[in-house]
Amino acid sequence: MEQLEEKIAREGEVVSDDILQVDTFLHRQIDPSLMDAMGKALAQRFADRGITKVVTVATGGIAPAVFTAMYLNVRCLIVDKNDTVPQDDRCFVSVTSRTQQKDFVLSIENGYLNEKDHVLIVDDFLANGNTITGVARLCHMAGASVEGIGICIEKCFQDGGTKLREAGYDVQSLALIRTMSETAISFRMQKEVLPDVF
Amino acid sequence: MEQLEEKIAREGEVVSDDILQVDTFLHRQIDPSLMDAMGKALAQRFADRGITKVVTVATGGIAPAVFTAMYLNVRCLIVDKNDTVPQDDRCFVSVTSRTQQKDFVLSIENGYLNEKDHVLIVDDFLANGNTITGVARLCHMAGASVEGIGICIEKCFQDGGTKLREAGYDVQSLALIRTMSETAISFRMQKEVLPDVF
Repeated sequence: MEQLEEKIAREGEVVSDDILQVDTFLHRQIDPSLMDAMGKALAQRFADRGITKVVTVATGGIAPAVFTAMYLNVRCLIVDKNDTVPQDDRCFVSVTSRTQQKDFVLSIENGYLNEKDHVLIVDDFLANGNTITGVARLCHMAGASVEGIGICIEKCFQDGGTKLREAGYDVQSLALIRTMSETAISFRMQKEVLPDVF
Repeated sequence: MEQLEEKIAREGEVVSDDILQVDTFLHRQIDPSLMDAMGKALAQRFADRGITKVVTVATGGIAPAVFTAMYLNVRCLIVDKNDTVPQDDRCFVSVTSRTQQKDFVLSIENGYLNEKDHVLIVDDFLANGNTITGVARLCHMAGASVEGIGICIEKCFQDGGTKLREAGYDVQSLALIRTMSETAISFRMQKEVLPDVF
């Protein structure tokens, strides 16, 4: 997605070998027109999958996920992310975020997802894929099927995308970063031939 | 705003004297078409104030704030909310959320707000007003002017709205809850004569 790649090239800041800061338009500060365009683009890629719910994790995923859900005309469910195991009987999984170097417990409160649901997982970044793998496991535990994974920015030099695709998931990313350094960011070329459904 | 009041009446759950859960459409799960309508309605109310930035606090405020920012054609800034004082030299304020019965430190990283900014603060709830008062103080500390405060749901039986209006802020709320109990929620009538600017 050209608009996103241009924004990353212009405003993104590579702060270490594997951390790209996009604070000016996606995290600390959000550019709503870009969120709208990203949501539309992700919804287009999964428009024919009968999606019943978009699922994301706070906080970076919320804005793109809500816009995606708007174009798919479904609600957006936010997975809880805590330091401790929930005290009620809900489904939960423990994950280690290698990017944030921290362990988390992801959970979905009972009643929000069931076997009738066809889920599209949306998140801001895909790096090592541990968080998204955890979200997919949670969806399966609730009985839902995961129809796809929509990502804003995938760091192709980390192995999350490969692992998730090898596991059979349809992973679609709007910007694919091939390499990055303090002085340059290069993108993997994408073929974007999409039906104009919206 | 009729659409929001209907949603609260249908899906809201009063869990204690002063806690209204709106998990099915605003918090745990987000209804994007309602967020779009709320963002548009809030933007309409402040359309003539020269707003340069919408400011909110994670996570409940993000979705309505981003849609408001979209209609006002500005970016949306998310105030950091942490348990501890920041280690860098940024502005911060400590607040006590009476609703959440917890102390927080709100902060804005340097460079995101300055004396040229005309801020609209947007949040999901207004109850005792401590968090929003903290956000307004932060904006002033950064040199920005606060042009208004846009709220999705104001609980009029708590004193946040009165305090903020008495302090001179233009507070506009889309749904004003007069009283609530497990069996009924009543709303304060609103005059809504707004220019159709979008």
